[in-house]
Amino acid sequence: MTPERFLLLLAGILVAAKLLGELAERVGQPAVVGELLAGVILGPSLVGFVDPTTPALHLIAEIGLVMLLFGIGLETDLKRLLSVGGAAFTVAMVGVALPFGLGYVVSRAFGIALLPAIVAGAALTATSVGITARVFSDLGELKSVEGQIVLGAAVIDDVIGLVILAIVSDLVAGNAPSVLGVVRTTAVAFGFLAATLLAGRYVVPPLFDLLARTGKEQTLASMALALAFLLAVLASNVGSALIVGAFAAGLVLAPTSHVEAVERGIVRLANVFVPIFFVSVGAAVDVRTFGSRNVVIIGVALTAVAILGKFAAGYAPAWVRARKALIGVGMVPRGEVGLIFAQTGLVAGVINAGEYSALMLMVLVTTFLAPPLLRRLIGKREAGATPAEVDASAVGEMTTES
Amino acid sequence: MTPERFLLLLAGILVAAKLLGELAERVGQPAVVGELLAGVILGPSLVGFVDPTTPALHLIAEIGLVMLLFGIGLETDLKRLLSVGGAAFTVAMVGVALPFGLGYVVSRAFGIALLPAIVAGAALTATSVGITARVFSDLGELKSVEGQIVLGAAVIDDVIGLVILAIVSDLVAGNAPSVLGVVRTTAVAFGFLAATLLAGRYVVPPLFDLLARTGKEQTLASMALALAFLLAVLASNVGSALIVGAFAAGLVLAPTSHVEAVERGIVRLANVFVPIFFVSVGAAVDVRTFGSRNVVIIGVALTAVAILGKFAAGYAPAWVRARKALIGVGMVPRGEVGLIFAQTGLVAGVINAGEYSALMLMVLVTTFLAPPLLRRLIGKREAGATPAEVDASAVGEMTTES
Repeated sequence: MTPERFLLLLAGILVAAKLLGELAERVGQPAVVGELLAGVILGPSLVGFVDPTTPALHLIAEIGLVMLLFGIGLETDLKRLLSVGGAAFTVAMVGVALPFGLGYVVSRAFGIALLPAIVAGAALTATSVGITARVFSDLGELKSVEGQIVLGAAVIDDVIGLVILAIVSDLVAGNAPSVLGVVRTTAVAFGFLAATLLAGRYVVPPLFDLLARTGKEQTLASMALALAFLLAVLASNVGSALIVGAFAAGLVLAPTSHVEAVERGIVRLANVFVPIFFVSVGAAVDVRTFGSRNVVIIGVALTAVAILGKFAAGYAPAWVRARKALIGVGMVPRGEVGLIFAQTGLVAGVINAGEYSALMLMVLVTTFLAPPLLRRLIGKREAGATPAEVDASAVGEMTTES
Repeated sequence: MTPERFLLLLAGILVAAKLLGELAERVGQPAVVGELLAGVILGPSLVGFVDPTTPALHLIAEIGLVMLLFGIGLETDLKRLLSVGGAAFTVAMVGVALPFGLGYVVSRAFGIALLPAIVAGAALTATSVGITARVFSDLGELKSVEGQIVLGAAVIDDVIGLVILAIVSDLVAGNAPSVLGVVRTTAVAFGFLAATLLAGRYVVPPLFDLLARTGKEQTLASMALALAFLLAVLASNVGSALIVGAFAAGLVLAPTSHVEAVERGIVRLANVFVPIFFVSVGAAVDVRTFGSRNVVIIGVALTAVAILGKFAAGYAPAWVRARKALIGVGMVPRGEVGLIFAQTGLVAGVINAGEYSALMLMVLVTTFLAPPLLRRLIGKREAGATPAEVDASAVGEMTTES
């Protein structure tokens, strides 16, 4: 790709994302809905301007996702997150088990074979941290109890999702997954997060105190970004995910005295990169695949249990005083991880094009349905309050305005 | 390239650029010298961590260059630039003609054939706008008369350089360049700049007034960036260069009331992207090619006339009251354009590896020599004043701190 084509692509994405993001807000939706829609419209199946498989665009979108999770981590109070840890863990476990089981049963009922039915069930498990965090932040609810439970549960079920992906990949490759392998993958995935947070508390603050002695706020921001990139890579290399490392980097920097300087730098960067990620997610949707009646029926059935399973999970931590419906709906959006499952199955020849499209429909509907539903649920409670009035924090700023 | 490898690459570049940039400043050099050095060290011929020909890195580096020139344009007062237009044009013309002629003669004297001697002469013509603007800005001298003359002349000789490149490419391909073609290329290159500035004055301010009604500063910054990208692409497509379009976008936005909002957004982005460009330029240097005695002798001879030619050009506008030595030395650094000439010649088989290395040496020495020389020239005049005290403007901030 020439630099000219690349700059044109980025300019087009930025303009479309801002335009449709602004329109979405005018009709009372979070900006992220407009950005996803911009992606669908610009994607290969309609306008054909944005191809999310373009290597350079994929890399930029990944940077956007890393920046988003880093920014969310910077805004997250670890103590507060841990205080809802039990609830979040319960929501995550139920929210993985129920959709997986229901998805498997529904698939089998429609005559789908064993292995593709497992892939379909697995694709229903992971809530999209990116979309869900962005929506709660757009709506000014990220720091509410419900927002924190959903954020925690979404991060946990992402980690679980990676373990499931490893198992499914084994199955798809024709290998029986070993119990030892599953235990090790699980331990590494959660162990990374714990180790980073513990080590980070001792290493990161003195390092950034030293950097602060240069007296240059922008040096701090650049080095914080480098830290986020490095932890993301480290997380991915030990078997966890890029976004888990980026989130951990934010959590580690959040309690330091430099968090505001870092945020000022990151907000501007995220403002450009994050919409590129969401446009890219939207562009992965191929609207042409919804022509088959059978695909639509299976897709609708999978979507129904995908919503039902996560909604029920919201009520799982019965002991917590919180708006359970808000938690349940907050867990509904599936995004990149669902697409990764579907693509892994498609590439390996385990699921066919029709089953792939049905899963696409599920990702699409859950992602687009959750924001307006959440908006309505929150609106009922805080009548008259605009998102900006509810939360004018830095992440609110980062995401509402992006 | 995997997202992991890419994030690791960017993190490594950012850390090395900040570290060596900071060290450079500690020993009284502009930060850009440290960034270039970081590139040489990380490049393929030494550490081998950064390969500037990696497609994704090349694209990111180009974005950095576009942002740098856009930022410089935002900081530039067109009226002030035009007020030194005659001087700048004179410096540019003499600074193209002298190095070209001297380079050709020296090459022929060393027994180099006609066509490679023309390529060598052409490679000496264009001052690096990026490096020269960055150095003047690092030193807090971008807005001085000398800074404006050098900036104007560097932009003009870049446009001339593109015309020469078109002619040389014709010669290299074995075609005799037509007078009509040369005139047309020249007219388009300068015409684009004039047309954009004229049209931009009527279109851009009302457009950004409209965007400002969203009340979101970050939307303004993103749309300004999109404008810079689009004008850069437009400039390149009509036969001018990306950086000329980006500079024009900055010039058009500079007089609007939104320039400060745009700058606040761009500074943070430039702080991350611009060092990536300079590290990338540094990494293009292959230190292994300096093993041959003959290469070093020709390289030193070409470097000498490259410096002499531009230094003399600084004294060409005899009627202007300015520090002529500062102008002359300011025009000395060759960078990306010189490398493009050398590469065009090498790929076409017109120059051999030895001649290519000699030109590399010229680019390397002129780029590294100018900043400390300028620092000394300016230091003499403003003894005791630190760059931060001389110029605390936004670009000073953008570049000094990056």
